[in-house]
Amino acid sequence: MGQQEPARLGVAMVGHSFMGAAHSHAWRTAPRFFDLPLTPARAVLVGRDAGRTREAASRLGWDESSTDWRTALERPDVDLVDICTPGDSHAEIALAALAAGKHVLCEKPLANSVAEAEAMTLAADDAARRGVLAMVGFTYRRVPAVQLARQLVAEGRVGEVRHVRVQYLQDWLVDPEAPLTWRLDRGRAGSGALGDIAAHAVDLAQFVTGELVTGVSGVLETFVRERPVATGGAGLTGVAGEGRGPVTVDDAAAFVARLSGGGLGVFEATRFALGRKNAIRLEVNGSRGSLAFDFEDMNVLHFYDGTDPVAIAGFRRIVVTEAEHAFVAAWWPPGHGLGYEHAFTHQVVDLVGSIAAGEQPRPSFRDGLVVQRVLDAVERSAEKGAWLDV
Amino acid sequence: MGQQEPARLGVAMVGHSFMGAAHSHAWRTAPRFFDLPLTPARAVLVGRDAGRTREAASRLGWDESSTDWRTALERPDVDLVDICTPGDSHAEIALAALAAGKHVLCEKPLANSVAEAEAMTLAADDAARRGVLAMVGFTYRRVPAVQLARQLVAEGRVGEVRHVRVQYLQDWLVDPEAPLTWRLDRGRAGSGALGDIAAHAVDLAQFVTGELVTGVSGVLETFVRERPVATGGAGLTGVAGEGRGPVTVDDAAAFVARLSGGGLGVFEATRFALGRKNAIRLEVNGSRGSLAFDFEDMNVLHFYDGTDPVAIAGFRRIVVTEAEHAFVAAWWPPGHGLGYEHAFTHQVVDLVGSIAAGEQPRPSFRDGLVVQRVLDAVERSAEKGAWLDV
Amino acid sequence: MGQQEPARLGVAMVGHSFMGAAHSHAWRTAPRFFDLPLTPARAVLVGRDAGRTREAASRLGWDESSTDWRTALERPDVDLVDICTPGDSHAEIALAALAAGKHVLCEKPLANSVAEAEAMTLAADDAARRGVLAMVGFTYRRVPAVQLARQLVAEGRVGEVRHVRVQYLQDWLVDPEAPLTWRLDRGRAGSGALGDIAAHAVDLAQFVTGELVTGVSGVLETFVRERPVATGGAGLTGVAGEGRGPVTVDDAAAFVARLSGGGLGVFEATRFALGRKNAIRLEVNGSRGSLAFDFEDMNVLHFYDGTDPVAIAGFRRIVVTEAEHAFVAAWWPPGHGLGYEHAFTHQVVDLVGSIAAGEQPRPSFRDGLVVQRVLDAVERSAEKGAWLDV
Amino acid sequence: MGQQEPARLGVAMVGHSFMGAAHSHAWRTAPRFFDLPLTPARAVLVGRDAGRTREAASRLGWDESSTDWRTALERPDVDLVDICTPGDSHAEIALAALAAGKHVLCEKPLANSVAEAEAMTLAADDAARRGVLAMVGFTYRRVPAVQLARQLVAEGRVGEVRHVRVQYLQDWLVDPEAPLTWRLDRGRAGSGALGDIAAHAVDLAQFVTGELVTGVSGVLETFVRERPVATGGAGLTGVAGEGRGPVTVDDAAAFVARLSGGGLGVFEATRFALGRKNAIRLEVNGSRGSLAFDFEDMNVLHFYDGTDPVAIAGFRRIVVTEAEHAFVAAWWPPGHGLGYEHAFTHQVVDLVGSIAAGEQPRPSFRDGLVVQRVLDAVERSAEKGAWLDV
Repeated sequence: MGQQEPARLGVAMVGHSFMGAAHSHAWRTAPRFFDLPLTPARAVLVGRDAGRTREAASRLGWDESSTDWRTALERPDVDLVDICTPGDSHAEIALAALAAGKHVLCEKPLANSVAEAEAMTLAADDAARRGVLAMVGFTYRRVPAVQLARQLVAEGRVGEVRHVRVQYLQDWLVDPEAPLTWRLDRGRAGSGALGDIAAHAVDLAQFVTGELVTGVSGVLETFVRERPVATGGAGLTGVAGEGRGPVTVDDAAAFVARLSGGGLGVFEATRFALGRKNAIRLEVNGSRGSLAFDFEDMNVLHFYDGTDPVAIAGFRRIVVTEAEHAFVAAWWPPGHGLGYEHAFTHQVVDLVGSIAAGEQPRPSFRDGLVVQRVLDAVERSAEKGAWLDV
Repeated sequence: MGQQEPARLGVAMVGHSFMGAAHSHAWRTAPRFFDLPLTPARAVLVGRDAGRTREAASRLGWDESSTDWRTALERPDVDLVDICTPGDSHAEIALAALAAGKHVLCEKPLANSVAEAEAMTLAADDAARRGVLAMVGFTYRRVPAVQLARQLVAEGRVGEVRHVRVQYLQDWLVDPEAPLTWRLDRGRAGSGALGDIAAHAVDLAQFVTGELVTGVSGVLETFVRERPVATGGAGLTGVAGEGRGPVTVDDAAAFVARLSGGGLGVFEATRFALGRKNAIRLEVNGSRGSLAFDFEDMNVLHFYDGTDPVAIAGFRRIVVTEAEHAFVAAWWPPGHGLGYEHAFTHQVVDLVGSIAAGEQPRPSFRDGLVVQRVLDAVERSAEKGAWLDV
Repeated sequence: MGQQEPARLGVAMVGHSFMGAAHSHAWRTAPRFFDLPLTPARAVLVGRDAGRTREAASRLGWDESSTDWRTALERPDVDLVDICTPGDSHAEIALAALAAGKHVLCEKPLANSVAEAEAMTLAADDAARRGVLAMVGFTYRRVPAVQLARQLVAEGRVGEVRHVRVQYLQDWLVDPEAPLTWRLDRGRAGSGALGDIAAHAVDLAQFVTGELVTGVSGVLETFVRERPVATGGAGLTGVAGEGRGPVTVDDAAAFVARLSGGGLGVFEATRFALGRKNAIRLEVNGSRGSLAFDFEDMNVLHFYDGTDPVAIAGFRRIVVTEAEHAFVAAWWPPGHGLGYEHAFTHQVVDLVGSIAAGEQPRPSFRDGLVVQRVLDAVERSAEKGAWLDV
Repeated sequence: MGQQEPARLGVAMVGHSFMGAAHSHAWRTAPRFFDLPLTPARAVLVGRDAGRTREAASRLGWDESSTDWRTALERPDVDLVDICTPGDSHAEIALAALAAGKHVLCEKPLANSVAEAEAMTLAADDAARRGVLAMVGFTYRRVPAVQLARQLVAEGRVGEVRHVRVQYLQDWLVDPEAPLTWRLDRGRAGSGALGDIAAHAVDLAQFVTGELVTGVSGVLETFVRERPVATGGAGLTGVAGEGRGPVTVDDAAAFVARLSGGGLGVFEATRFALGRKNAIRLEVNGSRGSLAFDFEDMNVLHFYDGTDPVAIAGFRRIVVTEAEHAFVAAWWPPGHGLGYEHAFTHQVVDLVGSIAAGEQPRPSFRDGLVVQRVLDAVERSAEKGAWLDV
């Protein structure tokens, strides 16, 4: 801890369910384990329902609550707006926040359409010139094992990338009676597995390899086309109410792709992989080494070093809990694994560091736009039955 | 063992390298562990070089050797012709054998073109009416864990199939100096990873699910386009000679697919997955259960039973070495795993059983043709950049 | 959250390095995710060095700091004393706290000797009659997968326990130049791997099986008998200073055991298992089922149900992240794994619940004493080369 | 294959159930895949029942059958006697064979008592001086992954051995109605899990580390003390008949040990580890590297290289199917795994090689005696409740 008290960074957060809880934990926890150059202050939590928002603010540790995000983001004691709402409101809130001169952390997907994402990116570029910074929340980038994967590629230990295969597998919609939450409503969510989890798959592939997806050919499917309407109920899955309604998004998406470096990509995202809860599997095969990661065992990275003598070469199961690994020194001794929410804490650490340094945090809105364009190409490819360049 | 000595089944085998050694072992071994209704006699081994074929016949346990497959298949003491040559000679030998009234076991892929495969299938159908039977060698079907996978689907324990993902990953071409064997020559092999290993992937997917691939969109790639010419040298990889030549087949293939039951398929086959030696990974997600298999751990099937209470549900690591599992009772006690060549022995067991019973062995030439059509659609899809129905 | 604000539970914590950081996180975090019947207030942090303690209090989120634990535990705004110091001071602090009518949470091992542990247990029993409660911190009990293991045994799904094997494997002393921290000093730590990690192994075995270790035969070893003296440096391993000193504790311990239900136990604890960072492996084989757990994959429990049909029986890889699993509903959706520190948060949840209900929290000091007696028997058995009843 | 036909090695084998089938396969198969300096001839199979032995000879591929082992081993066309009977007849047959000037391959355990094993070792030493060679069948030594483990230790890549832990886990006696076969009869089998499978555990530990077990402290247990008498029925488990009888051997054995190099050993062998079929798990931790092996995944060795940079160090999952690995070049391409019986084939290869070269094959009878002495010490230690030096 420095001699002088770091300056305050006032935060307003919009949304307080799943992502809101995760972000709150990160804002609370980051300064307890890391030396931050600015001290985050949880100034105000914004939600739609006054009572529930007040209760959430108390439980999650925010000083105040509000139901008016526009007013909140104009408060002089707010320096940053953290957007944890469904995708249909990202653009409006983010644009207003940037216009008001506030830094922005926006959950993924950046927006529900490429057009919105483009507008947001332009606004972010413009704001950056004024020292106002924006970041999109592809949180999985900050799992230490993923950081190590990227580092190994960047150091050349994987060589030329030949193959990237990413599967994001969940199973919470297998039950045809699982209710019709906002995540299954095209108007709110933009798309289904594609925008929600394939977005992570694409971002991870591009982040780890340092390459871009340049073309795709894909297929989307909705296996269960009608579901019980959801009533209240927080959480990912909601609670079934009366009546039924149409599912207007994809349950699953799959696509083959080409990468900018000449390799092939295979992507799959689904909420129907029975038995796979949140399995984000990434595998990279290069001319010199290979990598494999599965979020179901998130503290481990598998690395095959093709330069090892063949008789003793094998995928190394690296337990990514050493002080040498990104972010880990701040936590526990080797072998004491981290969990899901740590990546959010790391996100806060990096974001606060970038703001203090006046540097563009990554993933930027532009990084989010790039992912959005890939998803859009997949959607159009699936409609047309044709390969599409991104 | 029955009271009466079973009748003799004279076998002529063409080809004596990798597949020839595996088939020879199977013909020798099957009657030692299984009660066969016919006793295979290894009558004659056919090859191109007289000296090497004679030596191979001695080492592999064949009574005679020959360099003339046409004569061999007309011998009255030959009842079955086992074709272990590269794909460009399959059609000619198989057609001649069937015409001569000999049963045929033909290694996969059935042929190098759909046209050849169609002709072979017609000939096989015709021969079947005369009691002459033909089978194609998709050997992996007869790994006990794969048999169990099919059985679980057939029993309804997986429910409606939502997803099939199959990866066949090898790495023997990662080295750009790996030589240009016949497997990299379009004239001999027909295609590369596509016909050699994606063929297995497609057959396994169809076999296990009992469904057909109905449409595909794919991509092929050749990462290393020129290699040292191969000299002599047996084995998969050969030995590099002088001079270089063009690789005329694909190094890797990937495609998304639709299945006849409404599910999605994702397929990948490559010889460039560094660190993966012969990893055939099959995963099926259904409405009621899921399955996962990896040939790198071939005695194991993972099964998730979606009807288990959620608190104690999990992928079961079934060690498929119980007497209750297909073929296993003939071998060892539980936990004493089988190896690669056992599937060939099981293939002989089933083939001899079918011949004795006068029943069509599976996979039939028609099964091989169905796979061939999928591969052909993938190839054309990759050329056109478009979805193609099979 | 209830309508009425829960009453305050003032906490004084002694010690602020590894365990202090973990406990602080738990006190901060528990009320954010769980509905607690009392609201913990981090009143005062106690350490030896005024400056470092003040700094730690600020970083870890305590209202005040102090260098005088005796005064701290007598404060009227302190209801509970949390002891995170080395084992040599546990007894003194705990006895004083109980005498002062404060609840106590004491890190394991309960004490450095059986005599001390007995005195503490008597004091705790006495205090309990006055409504003052004491708990020892065998935190791993509160990993959800361990809770599930215990539940499965308790429900009879494992049947009669035949075998328990527990290994606690670390490798932070493999390097002979790793410094001589207090953990290698018999005066401070009491013993080495035995008291530090075999203690966990014994407690886990007893907790999961619900049985007691009734006899042991063991061996201890110190592989590196002299090390560089440690200088300052926090963390598990410290920093090497000048000069060398003797290691006065065991590096590794191993023992066979009998359990009260007639089964056999095999225990091993070591800081010399190169490549194993914090691998706590527990396996239980019963007449009806088996369990396997490894802390290196802490969100998973493997369960073999011996009543499954043999053809589809296998160890189930249960991802213990369902709302049905202990503590999990308060956190994230399925598949979003927890980390090391979550068990500390769960410990706070249970402890606060017990205090509010006026019920004995477990593990009690008596549970700690029982473990201590096993460790003592192992130590004497190793000296005498004889089986000893506990 | 050499130019000149290798000389003949006539074999007589006694016993034709589980081990007999495995040995027969090895004698048949070795010359098909390996260039042997002598050509094994399966001259005569000896059993107790004339009819069943004749049938077995036909099925397993032996030229003749006999019910008189004494006559068989005196035949001039017999050069080697392969003993696959229960342990109570090993000494008698082996001594007679050596006396008759025949080489001997004797299944483990070498004998049912140390006294017998000593007599056999003396006889073998004596015979060796006359060029007559004897080997004991600790077959698991010749699994390629185990060979690699030994090689890595021998090359110094593991450093000083600190820990060896070996578990041999089976579950075929969990059912209390499993019948009372000869393996549960002290008179026939000598002991239970101890001699049958702990023998392998001890031999593997000593083989891989190159060290000896110098002292032990152990415990034995018989969980089910009465079982249905077995009737006919081949195989490991037999078939239950009428009536019940006492189990006179141990169901499970566990012991801690010291190794000649200063390390600690922990051993466990049981037939009551529900869900573990034939799990032979070996782990070695050294000052420089660690090894892990599990026969349930027999083509894999895990190796941790402590000299790797810590950030990328991890247990390497080496798929031991490369041409560089022992015995593998004779089989299949990389990734095409071997099975249980391959180790028997490798045993024949090495034995025939040693005989042709006139060199002592390993494991020798003396190696078998060393194991026997360890097992004997474990048994006495368990009786006395005391540490015993070997």
